[in-house]
Amino acid sequence: MDWRIMIVNQYKEMLSGKSVIRQLSEFAAIKGAEIGYENVFDYSLGNPSVPAPWEFTKNMIHLLETSDSSLLYGYSPSLGIGSVREAIAGSLEERFGLPYRTEHIFMASGAAGALAHALRLVTKPGDEVLGFAPFFPEYKPYVNLTGAMFRVVPPEEAGFQINFDAFEATIGEKTMAVLINSPNNPSGVLYTEDTLRQLTEILRKKSRQYGHDIYLISDEPYREILFDGAVYPYVSAYYDNTIICYSFSKSLSLPGGRIGYVAVNPACRDAELLVNMCGQISRGIGHNCPTTIMQLAVAKALDITSDISIYEENRNLLYRELTALGFDCVKPDGTFYIFPRALEADAGLFCEKALKYNLILVPGDSFGVPGFFRMAYCIETQKVQRSLEALREFVATEYPESKM
Amino acid sequence: MDWRIMIVNQYKEMLSGKSVIRQLSEFAAIKGAEIGYENVFDYSLGNPSVPAPWEFTKNMIHLLETSDSSLLYGYSPSLGIGSVREAIAGSLEERFGLPYRTEHIFMASGAAGALAHALRLVTKPGDEVLGFAPFFPEYKPYVNLTGAMFRVVPPEEAGFQINFDAFEATIGEKTMAVLINSPNNPSGVLYTEDTLRQLTEILRKKSRQYGHDIYLISDEPYREILFDGAVYPYVSAYYDNTIICYSFSKSLSLPGGRIGYVAVNPACRDAELLVNMCGQISRGIGHNCPTTIMQLAVAKALDITSDISIYEENRNLLYRELTALGFDCVKPDGTFYIFPRALEADAGLFCEKALKYNLILVPGDSFGVPGFFRMAYCIETQKVQRSLEALREFVATEYPESKM
Repeated sequence: MDWRIMIVNQYKEMLSGKSVIRQLSEFAAIKGAEIGYENVFDYSLGNPSVPAPWEFTKNMIHLLETSDSSLLYGYSPSLGIGSVREAIAGSLEERFGLPYRTEHIFMASGAAGALAHALRLVTKPGDEVLGFAPFFPEYKPYVNLTGAMFRVVPPEEAGFQINFDAFEATIGEKTMAVLINSPNNPSGVLYTEDTLRQLTEILRKKSRQYGHDIYLISDEPYREILFDGAVYPYVSAYYDNTIICYSFSKSLSLPGGRIGYVAVNPACRDAELLVNMCGQISRGIGHNCPTTIMQLAVAKALDITSDISIYEENRNLLYRELTALGFDCVKPDGTFYIFPRALEADAGLFCEKALKYNLILVPGDSFGVPGFFRMAYCIETQKVQRSLEALREFVATEYPESKM
Repeated sequence: MDWRIMIVNQYKEMLSGKSVIRQLSEFAAIKGAEIGYENVFDYSLGNPSVPAPWEFTKNMIHLLETSDSSLLYGYSPSLGIGSVREAIAGSLEERFGLPYRTEHIFMASGAAGALAHALRLVTKPGDEVLGFAPFFPEYKPYVNLTGAMFRVVPPEEAGFQINFDAFEATIGEKTMAVLINSPNNPSGVLYTEDTLRQLTEILRKKSRQYGHDIYLISDEPYREILFDGAVYPYVSAYYDNTIICYSFSKSLSLPGGRIGYVAVNPACRDAELLVNMCGQISRGIGHNCPTTIMQLAVAKALDITSDISIYEENRNLLYRELTALGFDCVKPDGTFYIFPRALEADAGLFCEKALKYNLILVPGDSFGVPGFFRMAYCIETQKVQRSLEALREFVATEYPESKM
């Protein structure tokens, strides 16, 4: 059967398939209506609760008060507003030392929009895109609904870097792109420079071996959310054929702003052609650029973020408590996720038991790592604090043999 | 060859293909830099120059000043914000008398986003989508890049209603959808009730004959831009399986706001299922809803429009002058376009000659009607007035035999 007809059928099937995260989030809402939402420790959704910087909103108001209607609401060129692309290129150059110019940037409606373009740029149906467990579950439909296939490299569970033996066993002639996400949703782990060196060494070797470019697609919406002064190793610096997909959703707490970009490495083969092709891909998928006013507003906010220290404090509280309770847990370097091993083999059962204590945790299965669970701690710190007692009670009651 | 691989190759080819409208608009910008843009009579682009209502901007500011960050910038549910969908359903019910409810509305990023979903809802690769000349040129890539095929029904040149003989000769077993756009870009013509009755009669007959539903996709961004008190015959009232694609780009002058919706007729088979499927289609094309703040803002502006009377005045000026100059021209019922017959058979040559008089006109070829040309009069009235002298000079000099 034609793959697109398969996809059309898939849309219907997907409707009956249940998204675990969505189910849990709905449960949290129902429970909240019952006992007060402040008593539900909802760690299900990666929806930032730290507000967008007031400076950002002030600037939106200023734009609205002082600009022409045609500037605020006029069509954006299909690749994005020139001055905005230029500002982003300049900021990337300044921060990461690569010679980005306007022609390397394509404005996209968030990471979903950016990935939709990047994937279509470098794959065709039947190709394979490799991702590393644990991974953001939406990668599967994002890739598979283009007609390419998402293949998962099993995790390196000790530290959630890369399992290179598994990677070399999975990569093959059909691999046209490798998709990474560092710092990572759900583990919070940042790939080390060593990991990036080893990864890109293999990509270069395999590109030669298979006689075609293998692209590195780096989905980096959490790039700015780093703790303990960690420094982000800029992926493009390690590999020429790198395509960055960025979103302002997390760093500026703007998930509903639908604003991000594709940044093609200036050293990438045919970099400018790829960016221009994004504009054509848009015509096929009905994209047509992020909202003009959001483009203008983020261009003025490239050097600010929401208050990241709140996530760091939440991470500290949770990591300390979880390890004290005997959880096997990799310490997150950033993001607002933590991904500990559950206290029984079936993380689904584990998370189900946690519901009794009003703890909404997400089983790791849909992230490609059964036996683990994710907590999204983009919630208020005082709520994290109050949840610790529930966590202690949950473990003491349900898992009394766990070392405490 | 796999159709998607054909599409991937097409992206590159499209880059070298030249968009006439874009070329002309670039020419206008260059010429403007030379002689002052106020002296270039740029009728190339359908980019509204009439400002968005001040009430709309005031409301945006009010939202920003008084709302929570999470409300302003938080994720929208994948089908759109419930209260916004409800407000739109209510407004449609009130205005057009059909029992729209929240579950019939899907929020989309403008008409391009809406059409991307509607087309994928009801067609699969190899199917055919019929459109009527003259048509908005982007329909071709919109349809063809899904894998379906856009087939054009030749025009009824006397009044730009529908050429029903040609329609019956073109519709076939593979026709899964018929795409209309009334009032029309580029002709400005509104389909009459008679046209809609005859069209939908044929659709019902052919659906029975072929044993499958044929959907009517109605792209209606110009629905509110009507002159002489014309009343819009609401398409869904004539045909159950109607899917409306709407955009606020034109009625509120918000093309860069990227906000619109899909409205599935409550009487459509599986109406709610279709709306839910839109949410799944989004995952495949990286859509993820229009910007939250734009959704909130348009929900408060469902009863207002930009100052449409400016377009009506421009139409009156141009129609009067063009007919006085001997142009064969259907009088537009709405929109901000007029589509006269050129004074020589090759409209490309005609428009090229017009450039000497700083008149930027677009040949009708890409709209599927060679020999005609489009003027987009969404520009300032005083500029339209000044352009009349240039128009007279152009005709008198280049076409002295034309009856004047």
